[in-house]
Amino acid sequence: MSKTPYDSHLDKTPANYQPLTPLTFLERSASVHPDHVAVIHGRQRFTYAQLYERSRRLASALAWLGIQQGDTVSVMLPNVPPMLEAHFGVPMTGAVLHSINTRLDAAIVAFQLDHAESKVLIYDREFSATVKAAIDLCRVKPRLVEYDDPEFPQVGERMSPVEYEDFIKRGFAGYKWRMPADEWDAISLNYTSGTTGNPKGVVYHHRGAHLMCYANIVSAQMSRHSVYLWTLPMFHCNGWCFPWTVTAAAGTHVCLRWVRAGAIFEAMAEHGVTHLCGAPVVMSAMLNATANEVRPLPRRVQFITAAAPPPEAVLSRMEQAGFDVTHVYGLTETYGPATVNEWKGEWDALDPSGRAVRKARQGVRYAALEGLTVMNPETMEVVPSDGATLGEVMFRGNIVMKGYLKNPAATDEAFAGGWFHSGDLGVLHSDGYIQLKDRSKDIIISGGENISSIEVEDVLYKHPLIAACAVVAKPDERWGETPCAFIEVKPGAELLASDVIAWCRVRRCRRPRPAKSRNSACARWQRRFDARGEAH
Amino acid sequence: MSKTPYDSHLDKTPANYQPLTPLTFLERSASVHPDHVAVIHGRQRFTYAQLYERSRRLASALAWLGIQQGDTVSVMLPNVPPMLEAHFGVPMTGAVLHSINTRLDAAIVAFQLDHAESKVLIYDREFSATVKAAIDLCRVKPRLVEYDDPEFPQVGERMSPVEYEDFIKRGFAGYKWRMPADEWDAISLNYTSGTTGNPKGVVYHHRGAHLMCYANIVSAQMSRHSVYLWTLPMFHCNGWCFPWTVTAAAGTHVCLRWVRAGAIFEAMAEHGVTHLCGAPVVMSAMLNATANEVRPLPRRVQFITAAAPPPEAVLSRMEQAGFDVTHVYGLTETYGPATVNEWKGEWDALDPSGRAVRKARQGVRYAALEGLTVMNPETMEVVPSDGATLGEVMFRGNIVMKGYLKNPAATDEAFAGGWFHSGDLGVLHSDGYIQLKDRSKDIIISGGENISSIEVEDVLYKHPLIAACAVVAKPDERWGETPCAFIEVKPGAELLASDVIAWCRVRRCRRPRPAKSRNSACARWQRRFDARGEAH
Repeated sequence: MSKTPYDSHLDKTPANYQPLTPLTFLERSASVHPDHVAVIHGRQRFTYAQLYERSRRLASALAWLGIQQGDTVSVMLPNVPPMLEAHFGVPMTGAVLHSINTRLDAAIVAFQLDHAESKVLIYDREFSATVKAAIDLCRVKPRLVEYDDPEFPQVGERMSPVEYEDFIKRGFAGYKWRMPADEWDAISLNYTSGTTGNPKGVVYHHRGAHLMCYANIVSAQMSRHSVYLWTLPMFHCNGWCFPWTVTAAAGTHVCLRWVRAGAIFEAMAEHGVTHLCGAPVVMSAMLNATANEVRPLPRRVQFITAAAPPPEAVLSRMEQAGFDVTHVYGLTETYGPATVNEWKGEWDALDPSGRAVRKARQGVRYAALEGLTVMNPETMEVVPSDGATLGEVMFRGNIVMKGYLKNPAATDEAFAGGWFHSGDLGVLHSDGYIQLKDRSKDIIISGGENISSIEVEDVLYKHPLIAACAVVAKPDERWGETPCAFIEVKPGAELLASDVIAWCRVRRCRRPRPAKSRNSACARWQRRFDARGEAH
Repeated sequence: MSKTPYDSHLDKTPANYQPLTPLTFLERSASVHPDHVAVIHGRQRFTYAQLYERSRRLASALAWLGIQQGDTVSVMLPNVPPMLEAHFGVPMTGAVLHSINTRLDAAIVAFQLDHAESKVLIYDREFSATVKAAIDLCRVKPRLVEYDDPEFPQVGERMSPVEYEDFIKRGFAGYKWRMPADEWDAISLNYTSGTTGNPKGVVYHHRGAHLMCYANIVSAQMSRHSVYLWTLPMFHCNGWCFPWTVTAAAGTHVCLRWVRAGAIFEAMAEHGVTHLCGAPVVMSAMLNATANEVRPLPRRVQFITAAAPPPEAVLSRMEQAGFDVTHVYGLTETYGPATVNEWKGEWDALDPSGRAVRKARQGVRYAALEGLTVMNPETMEVVPSDGATLGEVMFRGNIVMKGYLKNPAATDEAFAGGWFHSGDLGVLHSDGYIQLKDRSKDIIISGGENISSIEVEDVLYKHPLIAACAVVAKPDERWGETPCAFIEVKPGAELLASDVIAWCRVRRCRRPRPAKSRNSACARWQRRFDARGEAH
């Protein structure tokens, strides 16, 4: 290409180029709104000045231990203030934040710590037994810092001589944290559990985390000083990047150690919550709260949900209860949500069932995702926009992970052909919205016919006595698989299996699809994505 | 630095890295909201599908002319649909959009066209006389495309055989536009008029324009489908990047060929305008509209203003009239606004005068600006946060220009020490908010005393019969300079100069500051920034 006048003497300098990082959002909110409440946890309140100070103290204390660029610092914490502080304090040192799912067992925790070459583990005393067992299994032992929640004291065995609050007191409040040398530098590490084999370590970078903050704000329609309730675990894809997002909006983080209906309603009533995120089970918990637990909402609340399409009955009841539900979808590999069911005004006129059909779609690309499509992974050709032809959902853009840590083969396979292969099956509708169909774990193949677990769940959720349900495939000698429903009935209700079966039988409205197309066209790559990490 | 596990096999690929550009926002809005009205111009309506198609046709027609990466395409257009389309169609070809201030004379237009090596000029027939004279002066003649506004036909001489609508009809609606090869590639060129010497060509890049969209959305509190009225000229710093911003929000652009009070109120009433931007003179025009022109506002409207702090009287009347006024500040070199007077809830309790004092501050850094401070430019030391010590306002970050086109000396000088030197004098308040003081054009030195033109204007604006005013320095043999006020009285009102002088005299409340400190500490660099482009 020939040289143009725009090619000379217009270079990057510190004045006109700075690495993108979410850390600048905390610095800004602390500088502009130092006295605004950043964190609520029980009776604790931390302003933005304090959150910034505590994060810098943490960074300073870690640096004093020798933590530096490219080291891994692990955390096994519920949604408590130190978990938020770790999202800032750890990357302030140039290190990478590794969040551990608090529900994992010692063997997997030990695998992750070893694989990540973790130098420090900050954990909550609630998990000290698991941590003790995991450390025993580790090849190299990380240093331990134990958080003893002053608001909700835990009874686990004290494992480490170093308590978190004492640890950060050692740090310097004025610690001069560093911008990442490169916005492509790693900021965090999240392991997918996968369905087979060892977990894979998904690496995020500063650039993606920064852009995700803007995309979340736009998608969730957040504004300055939004109040966010932490029902989504922060260990889950870094809480979809909301620790950084809420901070970018100078909002208030309302911590929640355990997801319980009473605590959720109390927080919403007392702190004016505007936004929360969670799987449909959180919605069910709220809808099935007892009269003692329910509190009136002071305002309409935005609920962002993922993991499974919201069932029609749940959706209707949520709307009546004062929630606007937004359906998003993504994977650990995409920083959390990467698609959003962007709602159109004209859909408001549909009946509840029509609205639920629309709401069930996973939708369109997040603003920070440059490409979203459904392709035949063999040919890399986009499927017809007919709402029927199955393909693999593919992502491309700045909120796709750096790759899998120390796993170049898996990384190359995931990025084959210049697109991230989600492993999820879906269709393209005529309006460009995507919809997942027959996710490997959602499809039940019974007598050669495909049965969608989602469709069975939809029918079950309409039953007036059912609080929550999940339908899975049960191995069956004759049929190969048959659907098996796990059902939680409402408090005080009684329900017979035969009633439920009868309920489903009269409501079966769709003809099952033959499994043939899937078996022929998709069988080979089906095997491939069976080994991929789970969607959420 | 030693190699860490995060340094290997986690590289950029098309799957996980895409150049940031505002072009993807149009593609997204056209894909997600194809039928939503993107542009209103007179009786014309273009949906997002149409705006995208027209932009691609423009790109295709330009490419057919041979326009390619790094070429310059100039436009001299008012706020009409082709001006919006140029913001997308020109960079879709890899070319750079050069917007010409429509108020300039032929000699300066010719200088810009030559300096930019412009290949094509798209202009409105309203300016054909200026264009004709400018082309006569040009060393190399660009191809001409004339826009003949179908809604507001102009009477100027037809200069080019090619009319804009015919031109884009030649283009292909399905034109496959290209992502920029690098997000650092130039996207637009805007000349500062400067106070001495030749104009300097400020170059923006795709990365900065993309980030500015998010920052504008956050700062202006825009949401999906906001309705934006085009009172700010799009030729002015690319309309502060709002052509791209409103599109990112899938909002509606309401075009306005001329800024007239009646047309503004009509647009607000009929189209449900939510946002508009402009200098204080736009506020004055609205506040002084006749009863015939005023229409009730269907909702509260966000008004984003720059150029000068909003006077107290104007601010109060705007609030009463249904506007929330946000004060921003920036320069051509910072893509438009780079600071925002981020309003704090506790300031609502202040009296009108106290609120105006707060609102007069230029504020804090935009979310997309990584650094903002006030320094002594000799020592590059930050001034004390005392609200009194003068220094030069300095910017650093991703919304600072690439540099000045073909002017490495000016670029290097502007970026000396790793910060962009604004040339504006200001102070740092104790809360971190900056405030401009004594901008070179705002300070009047009379008998060795500094007089702030802003303070005199503040007093004048409180006069019940004054619609608009501007105070400048007038050369004076005895005093060096004296203040000279240009005053527009309200329709039908009469006012004597002696009345105005008496009004000011009794309201003079602040002691003039001695000019000494400025003359000694700032004289040298004062000379330097006198040659810099104007702030807005």
